[in-house]
Amino acid sequence: MPTLTSDHISRQFDAELDGLRSRVTQMGGLVENQIERAIAAFLSGDLDAMEQVIADDHRINGLEVSIDDECAHIIARRQPAAGDLRLVMAVSKIVTDLERIGDEAAKIARTAREIYQRDRLQVPRLADVRKLGELGVEMLRDVLNAFVRLDVVESARIIRSDAMLDDNFRGILRQLITYMMEDPRTISSALDITFIAKAIERIGDHSKNIAESVIYVVKGKDVRHIAIDMMEREALGNED
Amino acid sequence: MPTLTSDHISRQFDAELDGLRSRVTQMGGLVENQIERAIAAFLSGDLDAMEQVIADDHRINGLEVSIDDECAHIIARRQPAAGDLRLVMAVSKIVTDLERIGDEAAKIARTAREIYQRDRLQVPRLADVRKLGELGVEMLRDVLNAFVRLDVVESARIIRSDAMLDDNFRGILRQLITYMMEDPRTISSALDITFIAKAIERIGDHSKNIAESVIYVVKGKDVRHIAIDMMEREALGNED
Repeated sequence: MPTLTSDHISRQFDAELDGLRSRVTQMGGLVENQIERAIAAFLSGDLDAMEQVIADDHRINGLEVSIDDECAHIIARRQPAAGDLRLVMAVSKIVTDLERIGDEAAKIARTAREIYQRDRLQVPRLADVRKLGELGVEMLRDVLNAFVRLDVVESARIIRSDAMLDDNFRGILRQLITYMMEDPRTISSALDITFIAKAIERIGDHSKNIAESVIYVVKGKDVRHIAIDMMEREALGNED
Repeated sequence: MPTLTSDHISRQFDAELDGLRSRVTQMGGLVENQIERAIAAFLSGDLDAMEQVIADDHRINGLEVSIDDECAHIIARRQPAAGDLRLVMAVSKIVTDLERIGDEAAKIARTAREIYQRDRLQVPRLADVRKLGELGVEMLRDVLNAFVRLDVVESARIIRSDAMLDDNFRGILRQLITYMMEDPRTISSALDITFIAKAIERIGDHSKNIAESVIYVVKGKDVRHIAIDMMEREALGNED
């Protein structure tokens, strides 16, 4: 029964691809949680929570290696073509971006620890960093949803929204410079907060990379490095 | 003549893989040149050279997209296995790291332009940034050579050497903090120099990623996220 057999193989393959996608989603959830906890710990000064984020980073690293390994195995065993191959290759890039977002979470926790261990006196401009953090987490959550639904319209919107995160970052930077100039004793802490804001801004960059990968999977067009207008035209091409 | 034909196909495939590797090397050379020119322009204050680096970034972006595309085509057409598949998948990751090093070069040039357009009065600690830049470029050059020769011993050494770059960065940061405290008027420029130093330090991170990819190609072992000692044992396994 060749048809049944090939049906069976094809169903098995589909199940493998579904499994791969759900593992990416699982990893994404873990990364999102790390970022949220790191920012919350920075805002509250909870040293135990900072330590926990730093300690949990290895779980994300482990997932990157094993999902990547799965990608190589699927390609070798199934020899996927077209959209399936694009999905597997995109997953291999997406887990690298997720792992690096995880690194930023650990970096935020380590820098926060340094700030609070040095002096608890003044941690300026928390409200703006909180806002930036919310934007960063939202962008990550949106792009994970866009990946699950392979939603190119939403991905195009996410790519465009990265500019807002960059603007917010520059606003925080200007405020911190004023702060440092007014009271040079705050320079060390203000510099550390700059690095935390920078880490959040990088979450936006990585989320944007992931959004580009989603468009690549669906459309088979590489939208990296083309102007936003052209990119949106490519991404939305058949949706109009 | 089936043997001749399969020989022919295999020789064609080898030629394709060689072509892929030489295009990565070509892209690496371009990235190295961008970094060198960006740092030199920052050190000399040459605004024209800064503009040139910013304008040339698109050439690197174009190479990333086309090499990545080639990787997908080789996998779809040749269905490579084992070491060949690892090489193609690693190349797809390596060009992403190279492209992001290119981004750092453009970032250095843009930040340098901001510093010199703001005020030419004092750009502190140039000697240390020059040293850091030399270390970063050396690391990139070394890892490109390690990729060409698929040299795991050298790759392991490069991964270890990244710590030196981090130490140098932290030294520069301490000096810049002292500088800002002594003369708060330098805060804006000192902060920009911090970002330039940070960009160079990230070149080290990406070079380390590339070195890990080289070890993965040769050994088929994923050495990301394991302790340096264990990583060296893995990498050097059959060389002893």
